[in-house]
Amino acid sequence: MPRVASDDLLIRDLMDRAEILDVVIAYATALDAKDWTALGSLFTPEAVWAYEAGGEQVIGPAAIAARIAGTVERLQATQHFCGNHTVQVDGDRARHTCYYQAQHVGHSGETFLGAGRYTDRLTRTPDGWRFTHRTLSNVWSSGDPAVLAG
Amino acid sequence: MPRVASDDLLIRDLMDRAEILDVVIAYATALDAKDWTALGSLFTPEAVWAYEAGGEQVIGPAAIAARIAGTVERLQATQHFCGNHTVQVDGDRARHTCYYQAQHVGHSGETFLGAGRYTDRLTRTPDGWRFTHRTLSNVWSSGDPAVLAG
Amino acid sequence: MPRVASDDLLIRDLMDRAEILDVVIAYATALDAKDWTALGSLFTPEAVWAYEAGGEQVIGPAAIAARIAGTVERLQATQHFCGNHTVQVDGDRARHTCYYQAQHVGHSGETFLGAGRYTDRLTRTPDGWRFTHRTLSNVWSSGDPAVLAG
Repeated sequence: MPRVASDDLLIRDLMDRAEILDVVIAYATALDAKDWTALGSLFTPEAVWAYEAGGEQVIGPAAIAARIAGTVERLQATQHFCGNHTVQVDGDRARHTCYYQAQHVGHSGETFLGAGRYTDRLTRTPDGWRFTHRTLSNVWSSGDPAVLAG
Repeated sequence: MPRVASDDLLIRDLMDRAEILDVVIAYATALDAKDWTALGSLFTPEAVWAYEAGGEQVIGPAAIAARIAGTVERLQATQHFCGNHTVQVDGDRARHTCYYQAQHVGHSGETFLGAGRYTDRLTRTPDGWRFTHRTLSNVWSSGDPAVLAG
Repeated sequence: MPRVASDDLLIRDLMDRAEILDVVIAYATALDAKDWTALGSLFTPEAVWAYEAGGEQVIGPAAIAARIAGTVERLQATQHFCGNHTVQVDGDRARHTCYYQAQHVGHSGETFLGAGRYTDRLTRTPDGWRFTHRTLSNVWSSGDPAVLAG
């Protein structure tokens, strides 16, 4: 059956959406597995990771991974649960947003959950989509903030 | 999901799924941003929004947006976290269900979380998919219900 | 995700992803609806359901459904909230992982939430994708564990 030209574009858009979600979920998977090499590999060399609440900006894969490791490494476990994904692709650039609930478990089982929103920009590279910007915006939290202080 | 013979139909079905999820997430995004115009625009003129627990029905975009604004406007923040999406498309009609966890944050930081299920019907319009029916079914809650009373 | 040349393969991969997510969500839907026939139907005859924390393995649809019913039947309600899905398809075999938050509500409204990760293997059958393996790994919990003891 002959296929209209636009089918190719629709397929490419759907595949881009799927590949971008894979990168977004790989961030949570790597972080929760404390796999800092995998986490860093998801960012471009000049990528900016920003934590809105603290007015904090970190630049580049190694610094971003080290910043997150500094919070997470000493915890027993974390779980970065994501939902409400939106993806907008424009050629080799894309925007993504999602909600998160980030649970942090200390070594005595005490917990602190921070929840909010990721606002992301990504670029298509020869190795696949990568983050150029990830911004975290807190919305609510529960539990014991001392968990994060280690 | 039923199998169809043609690639074109498969692509259309996948694209419909993606577009319907975009509408579903746009509801949560608009609500949590307190953007009542955007929220209303997701419903057809005769759409029915029903809250099962209260036996409550609201009809039409303006009334639906006003009903939700009445609960949410006075809160500091909300986060309507969605997951477990299912979509069934039948021509220009579709059904969608998902789970939600709706966090409500009062101005002193106190919280009330209501969790349950959306059961939706949508129709394809010249402007894209729109809700004709959205029903909320509560399953569990936690925190302080007084948060909702303002 | 590796790139493949043919549109047909891309469409098939995207459709497989969608169908596999449908099966994954159907597990939560059936469980939360206490529909044990529907739950069992999602597994192949030799399927293995494993609960990592207890070193427990259950084999076959009837035994799996009975095992889960034994925990859930006496509760007022459950909600198995899923997110962070990953899918890898290789011909007629697939792997899937996701995060879960499983809320359990007793008859007095008391709650116990267990959260973790599903690690799944599925196979394509004439009736669609089915689980051959589902493993549950706990990460954190909150609330009153006595809820589960009934």
